[in-house]
Amino acid sequence: MRLKKYTDYALRVLIYTGSSDKKVSIKEISETFFISTEHIRKVVHQLSVNDYIQTTRGRNGGIRLAKKPEDINIGDVVRLMENDFYLVECFNEGENQCVITPACKLRGLLGKAMHAFFDVLHQYTLSDLLANKEELQTLMGIEIEQP
Amino acid sequence: MRLKKYTDYALRVLIYTGSSDKKVSIKEISETFFISTEHIRKVVHQLSVNDYIQTTRGRNGGIRLAKKPEDINIGDVVRLMENDFYLVECFNEGENQCVITPACKLRGLLGKAMHAFFDVLHQYTLSDLLANKEELQTLMGIEIEQP
Repeated sequence: MRLKKYTDYALRVLIYTGSSDKKVSIKEISETFFISTEHIRKVVHQLSVNDYIQTTRGRNGGIRLAKKPEDINIGDVVRLMENDFYLVECFNEGENQCVITPACKLRGLLGKAMHAFFDVLHQYTLSDLLANKEELQTLMGIEIEQP
Repeated sequence: MRLKKYTDYALRVLIYTGSSDKKVSIKEISETFFISTEHIRKVVHQLSVNDYIQTTRGRNGGIRLAKKPEDINIGDVVRLMENDFYLVECFNEGENQCVITPACKLRGLLGKAMHAFFDVLHQYTLSDLLANKEELQTLMGIEIEQP
């Protein structure tokens, strides 16, 4: 049972961006997490298209959250990044060949389990993941803004 | 979000075997579900080693359940077949490189969601999946024992 790598990366991009008091760059996220800039770029694009982050170009450009951390629901982000939920073959109606599909109770049961999974994730927002922001900043080597 | 193919196949092997009043064969399961005999053989081996099914060789040999359907818990079967639960990188302690692991709250959150997923599956046994046994037998072309 795994989530996609891009889901993992998207959550890290949001944690990194939300932990910084300044705009951040693809390069620094990539270097912090040892993930290729190409992967981070794709994830940043998807998060940007879906209004989770804002990217601006140029000298003073960079990435920042497009909304407050408390308005970024973790369940929604995971649902967005996991673009299929084919737990077993019959969830993929286009390719399903399983002969017992019309009578099988497994699909309903797995669907119920998946809902329970997301029900938990929907209870949390990015602000819950940033509750210990200073500790995260230290681990990620993010410069702390002096008051 | 996907389960492994072998988890899907294992559940089908149990549904097929539990639906039949006679011993069944790898060949007939394979033909019914359009899954290669090699895949079914591997799954049957794993289910057999873990005491879910019994296999006997020879002329009157075949596969049957090793216990009552109500004693075969669906959560246990899925846990057995999904041999890793690396939802994100930090679940795999051997290969984890994520720098925020000591402070990150995501792992606990995803772990809680995964428990909710299995809590649902643990509420069901194979007998729940066989509640409409006759309908399943018809779809799988299993001969119904005449009383």
